[in-house]
Amino acid sequence: MAAAIANLDIESLGNQAEEMVQALGAISAEPGRLVRLFLTPEHRRAADLVAGWMQQSGLVVSEDALGTVRGRLGGTGKRRLLIGSHIDTVIDAGKYDGNFGVIAGIVAASYFARGGRDLPFGIDVLAFGDEEGSRYATTLSSSAAVAGVFDVNWLTQPDRDGVTLEDAIRAYGKNPDEVRAAAYRREEALAYVEVHIEQGPVLETRDQPLGVVTAIVGQTYFNVEVTGEAGHAGTVPMTLRRDALAGAAEMIQLAENLARENHTDVVATVGRLSVQPNASNVIPARVEFVLDLRSTSDSKRHAIAEQFCSGIRAIAERRHLGLNLAQTRNAETTLCDPRLQEGFASAVRSLEREPVLLGSGAGHDGQAMARLCPIGMLFVRCRGGISHNPMEYTSPRDMGFAIAALIRFIERFDVEAFG
Amino acid sequence: MAAAIANLDIESLGNQAEEMVQALGAISAEPGRLVRLFLTPEHRRAADLVAGWMQQSGLVVSEDALGTVRGRLGGTGKRRLLIGSHIDTVIDAGKYDGNFGVIAGIVAASYFARGGRDLPFGIDVLAFGDEEGSRYATTLSSSAAVAGVFDVNWLTQPDRDGVTLEDAIRAYGKNPDEVRAAAYRREEALAYVEVHIEQGPVLETRDQPLGVVTAIVGQTYFNVEVTGEAGHAGTVPMTLRRDALAGAAEMIQLAENLARENHTDVVATVGRLSVQPNASNVIPARVEFVLDLRSTSDSKRHAIAEQFCSGIRAIAERRHLGLNLAQTRNAETTLCDPRLQEGFASAVRSLEREPVLLGSGAGHDGQAMARLCPIGMLFVRCRGGISHNPMEYTSPRDMGFAIAALIRFIERFDVEAFG
Repeated sequence: MAAAIANLDIESLGNQAEEMVQALGAISAEPGRLVRLFLTPEHRRAADLVAGWMQQSGLVVSEDALGTVRGRLGGTGKRRLLIGSHIDTVIDAGKYDGNFGVIAGIVAASYFARGGRDLPFGIDVLAFGDEEGSRYATTLSSSAAVAGVFDVNWLTQPDRDGVTLEDAIRAYGKNPDEVRAAAYRREEALAYVEVHIEQGPVLETRDQPLGVVTAIVGQTYFNVEVTGEAGHAGTVPMTLRRDALAGAAEMIQLAENLARENHTDVVATVGRLSVQPNASNVIPARVEFVLDLRSTSDSKRHAIAEQFCSGIRAIAERRHLGLNLAQTRNAETTLCDPRLQEGFASAVRSLEREPVLLGSGAGHDGQAMARLCPIGMLFVRCRGGISHNPMEYTSPRDMGFAIAALIRFIERFDVEAFG
Repeated sequence: MAAAIANLDIESLGNQAEEMVQALGAISAEPGRLVRLFLTPEHRRAADLVAGWMQQSGLVVSEDALGTVRGRLGGTGKRRLLIGSHIDTVIDAGKYDGNFGVIAGIVAASYFARGGRDLPFGIDVLAFGDEEGSRYATTLSSSAAVAGVFDVNWLTQPDRDGVTLEDAIRAYGKNPDEVRAAAYRREEALAYVEVHIEQGPVLETRDQPLGVVTAIVGQTYFNVEVTGEAGHAGTVPMTLRRDALAGAAEMIQLAENLARENHTDVVATVGRLSVQPNASNVIPARVEFVLDLRSTSDSKRHAIAEQFCSGIRAIAERRHLGLNLAQTRNAETTLCDPRLQEGFASAVRSLEREPVLLGSGAGHDGQAMARLCPIGMLFVRCRGGISHNPMEYTSPRDMGFAIAALIRFIERFDVEAFG
C-alpha cells in the first residue's frame, strides 16, 4: 500500500472524496434511484451542499443565473485556473459521473487554501448544472454561459413538460437577463481542467488508475419525428398501413448498422423514443426519437450522419410516412491542449503511475469551455467501464490518486506557458 | 332519397343517433381528444347519460359490479334477446366505435317500448365498459362477467399506474365480490347481437351501408420485455452493447415481415412500447412492448405466433439480451350464428340494400358473449375504413339504415328457432 506518495496521503484523500460522493449521491428527485435534473429542487439541494463544502474549504462562493456554483481561491496574479465538472445527473444515474470532478476540485483547492502559500494564479472551482442534457435538448448551457458562448435562443426551448429554460431559471430564483454576466473575460481564464470518471473500459484494461484525455468526441444529435396514420390494429390490412413505429424500428436498425459496419469508434444510440397514441390495439400515428452519434473523427461522424439522413428519408418515402428531421446538436471534436496533457501526465508519473492517453467518448463541459480557453482532462478508472447506471463505481483509492494528481498538476502549473 | 322504407323513417332515426353520438362523444378525460377508459370518472359520466336515455325510452335500468349498464324491456316470455356494445374508448378515439352500437340498441328498444305491442321475448340493451383493453391487459372483462366466464384472477392485474382492477371497481363505487351476480343464466339468454361500425374499408368499397359479420378474428397478444444493459451512449463500443431498443426494433421488424409475407388477412401490430430509462444519452436498459396478432384463420395465427416467439428468442440470444415473453390473450376465431346472420341479411334486404358478408378484423364483446349464447353482428359503413382515430365517421343516414335493420331484425326474430 502506498499510503503516502510524495507527501500526499492517497488513502485519506480518497476516503474524504468517497464520503462526499455518498453525501451528494443521496440527493435525488426519487427515493429508489438517482435523478437530479438541471434547475430542479434537487439541483438546488446539491448546489447548497457543494457551496457549503466550498465555504468550509476557505473558498469564496457565488452562483450565476444558471445556478453554476463558483468557489474562488485568491492568488497573487489576476489570472485564474478554472477547475470544474457538473452536479446534474442522467435518470437512474451513478454517483460518480460529474459529481466526483466537482469534489476533486474542492478537495484540491482546499489543500492550497490550507497550505497558506499563495499560488501565482487564482483557482475557481465550478459546479455546472447542465451537462447531461437530461432535461433540455441543448446541453452544456451552464458551461457555455461561463465561456461566454450562451445562445439566448436556448431560453425558449421547452423541457418534456413544456417548461421553457427561461421559466426554469425563474423558478430556480434566478434572472434570465443575468446569464450574460456569468461569462469570464478571456484574459482572466488561464485554462479549464476537469477530473472525471472514464465511463469506459480502457483504464481498467490497462490496469492504471489515471488517464490523460487527448480529445473529446464530436457529437451530432438528431430529433426525428415520424408520422403515419392511426388505425385499428385489426382491420387495416398490412399493405395499407402507415405505421410510424414500424418505420421508426427500421430507422433505428439503420443507425445501428451504419455505426457497426464502420468498424471504428463511431457509436450510434437511440436512447429516447415515444409512441403516440401508445395503445396496444392502435396502429402508431407518431413516433419521436433522438439519435446520438459520436466519433473522434469529425469526417466519419459527418459521413454517417449524412447516410442516416438520406436513409431514413428513403424509408419514410417507401412507407408513405411523414418525416421531420432536425439536427439539435453538432459539436466538433474538441482537442485537449498539449501543455495541459503534459502537465497531467507529469503529475501522474510523479505518483509512480503510468498516464494512459485516451480519447473521451462522452461529452463534457470542456467542449463549451474550449471556446474560452485551453482545456485539459484527467480520467479516473471506473469499474467495468459502466456509467449512466447505478452500478457505476470508482474506488476511494483511485479517487485519492486523481485528487493527488490534480494537486501535483496545480503545484507544477506554469502560468508563464499560458501567456 | 328513401326517407321512409317499410314504415321506418331512416333520416329521423339517423339524425336521432347522430345527436346522441355527439352528446356521448363529448364525455372525455381530456379536453382536446376523446379518452374514456374503463371505470374512470368519464366512464361514470357516460354510463349516467346512457342510463338516462334508457329510462326516457321506457327501459328499466340497472348496473352491475363492472359498471355495465342494462336497460330492460319486458316481453311475454322469460327469455331475452341481448343487444349490446361498449362505451369505453381507445386513447384519442373516434365517437362511433362502440358508442353507436349502444345507441342503436336504445333507439331500437325504444321503438318497441313506444309501440305498445309485446314481443314474445324481452330485450336487454347492454352498455359494456371494457372492450378496448386501453386500461387493463385483459379485455372484455365486463362482457365476460355478463356471460358468466369472468376469471377472478383478473381482479389483481394492475393498470399502468399500478391500480388493480379490484381497486378500480371499488373506486367506481362497486363491490368486486358482486361480479359473479352479473352473469345471465344460460336458459335466459336467447342470443346476443351487436351493431358496430365496420372499422375497415370493405363496405365503402362495395358501396353498401350494411354488412353481416360471419366471424370475429382470433387474436393473440404477447407482452414482450427485452432487457439489456444501460450504459453511456458515448463510451460503450458498438460491439460491447446490449441495447434493449435496438433489439426490440429488430423484433418489431420481424413481426411486420411475418405478417406481410403471409399475404393473407393476418395483421401484426406493435402499438404500445416503452423505453427505460428513456434518456437520449443512455443505452436503453429495458423495452416493453405488446404485439397484437389477428387472423380469421386460427391455424395461420398460431403458426405466425410460433415463428414470432422463436424468432425473437433467437434475436435476444444473438444480442445477449434478456427476454420475458408472455401470451396475455389468445382468443380463437368466433363464428357468428348462421340463423342470426340470415336474420340480419333478411332485415337488410327488407330495406332494399344488399347485405355484404364479411369477417371482423376487430375484436368485440361478442367473443365473450359467444360463451353464453349464439351471437350475431351487423356492421355499418365508416368513412375510409378509419377507426381508433378522431377522423372516424359514419353518416347519419348509414346509422339510420343500421337502426332500421336492427328493428326489422327484432320484429322478425324467431324465438322458436332458438329452442
